[in-house]
Amino acid sequence: MQGTILVLYISHIFFFCKIIGLFLLKLADSSADDEYEVAETILGVANTKEFVANECIFENEILTSAQAAFNLQTPTLMSAYLNLHYICETGSRVIFLSIYWMRKIAAFDQLDGRTQIKLLRASWPGLLAIALAQVRSLSITTIITTLVANVRQLAEVDKIEPQKIRKLSEHIARIHSYIQETLTLDLDDMEFAFLRLAIFFNPHMLLRKRECNVRDFVRRVQLYVLSSLRKHIASQLDDEQQAEERFSTLIITLLPLAALESDVIEELFFSNLIGQVQIDNMIPYILTLSANTSL
Amino acid sequence: MQGTILVLYISHIFFFCKIIGLFLLKLADSSADDEYEVAETILGVANTKEFVANECIFENEILTSAQAAFNLQTPTLMSAYLNLHYICETGSRVIFLSIYWMRKIAAFDQLDGRTQIKLLRASWPGLLAIALAQVRSLSITTIITTLVANVRQLAEVDKIEPQKIRKLSEHIARIHSYIQETLTLDLDDMEFAFLRLAIFFNPHMLLRKRECNVRDFVRRVQLYVLSSLRKHIASQLDDEQQAEERFSTLIITLLPLAALESDVIEELFFSNLIGQVQIDNMIPYILTLSANTSL
Repeated sequence: MQGTILVLYISHIFFFCKIIGLFLLKLADSSADDEYEVAETILGVANTKEFVANECIFENEILTSAQAAFNLQTPTLMSAYLNLHYICETGSRVIFLSIYWMRKIAAFDQLDGRTQIKLLRASWPGLLAIALAQVRSLSITTIITTLVANVRQLAEVDKIEPQKIRKLSEHIARIHSYIQETLTLDLDDMEFAFLRLAIFFNPHMLLRKRECNVRDFVRRVQLYVLSSLRKHIASQLDDEQQAEERFSTLIITLLPLAALESDVIEELFFSNLIGQVQIDNMIPYILTLSANTSL
Repeated sequence: MQGTILVLYISHIFFFCKIIGLFLLKLADSSADDEYEVAETILGVANTKEFVANECIFENEILTSAQAAFNLQTPTLMSAYLNLHYICETGSRVIFLSIYWMRKIAAFDQLDGRTQIKLLRASWPGLLAIALAQVRSLSITTIITTLVANVRQLAEVDKIEPQKIRKLSEHIARIHSYIQETLTLDLDDMEFAFLRLAIFFNPHMLLRKRECNVRDFVRRVQLYVLSSLRKHIASQLDDEQQAEERFSTLIITLLPLAALESDVIEELFFSNLIGQVQIDNMIPYILTLSANTSL
């Protein structure tokens, strides 16, 4: 019950974040080194210790079937003029649930707050696309047609550079193509979950010298996720050749997700309800919130 | 001999392209549908026929070991104040050779000119990064330190948005990290070649209705490339487990390449020598040139 109320009010939390986010934007004058300081202060996770990998992570399953489910409470589709609200509400719920979902993964829990924030900031567009492909009760037709109409309107009415309009259109087309391809592949919850983890545990986002240890850990987790995905597929398919092909097909679907640019996705999904707020600024809040509640 | 002269004069060809490119920029008023018309006129490849996949591609090897070599004639490192020229010259030669290299692949040859251009425009930053990691005679230290110094100078002297500076810096760090990781993996020429093909044959760039057939073909080629890469690795390593791990490790290196944004890479590598010209405008010329010469 508590969870239901919480989910229903996510968009209000986002709105609340907008106000603090704007304040934060001024505070965090984003010099490269201080970038995560403000977020860390909020999260209370300032990290001074050196990261030490917990080997238990690699001795146990990275993911149990109980953890794989991604039960999104989809918003209700109202009249057409509220379609933009439907998109934004869907996006907000997906991001909230993706972070909440991630918290249940032991390997995620091993990371310090700074790294969790950094990897979530880099991966949220991909996590959003995966969820759109996974949650069948969402009206993808509504989302895509509304996004297209919205960009068309932007191109006609507002004075926006053609290059930007092209980028927005390309991103809609890519997301649509990703969803369609994923539908034909008919993934199960475990497969979606492994892909979610593979896109999140991205060592290439941890490039500073002091991140050396945590980067190695993240790289090992990413490979462990892939080998677990391979085993899972092999357990589902008798034919070895077929299993290998499916494995390659699923991994290669990650490429278009890696190419999604967060500022473009932000503009498509979140520009209407919550104005200027950036998802980057909200991630620390959602992390705190999901740590303190039992959904 | 003819080939040597050709390679030595690539930067001059690029300079020549600048002039025509600027003219083209005015010509190609880039409405979504006309986007490739100008390029097609130059290339003389206007495509009206429906694409039919040639099944022979999947009956033969996608790549022979003779085709795998990537013999770049690296530019000579001169005094420090010419380092930016070294970077641009390296970038130009890599793009030229990558396209020339691709022409020798039968599956590439099957594609119509429109599709070749489209896929090259989407993949050249990744192809550039792969070449930087592969060609050991290049001075990566010079390239990276010069790029860093250049961005630092931009940040100090010019009035450029902090967000843009951050993007440029992130891209340098990503390329550096990719090169370093690839060095530790010690890839052979065949592995590099398969990765080059996997990043080029990207079905997610062909999203129009009329591209349906060619998209399916490109998707099949991409999967065929991956299964060929797996077989190649298995033939090199006795231990099956090790081979599978190496396969996953290599495929996952494609993710940071997919995330490279072409306008940022263009600014880093090509802003100094050739001014405003876009690689997108040069690709049709290089394709024509490589079709008419025997390097």
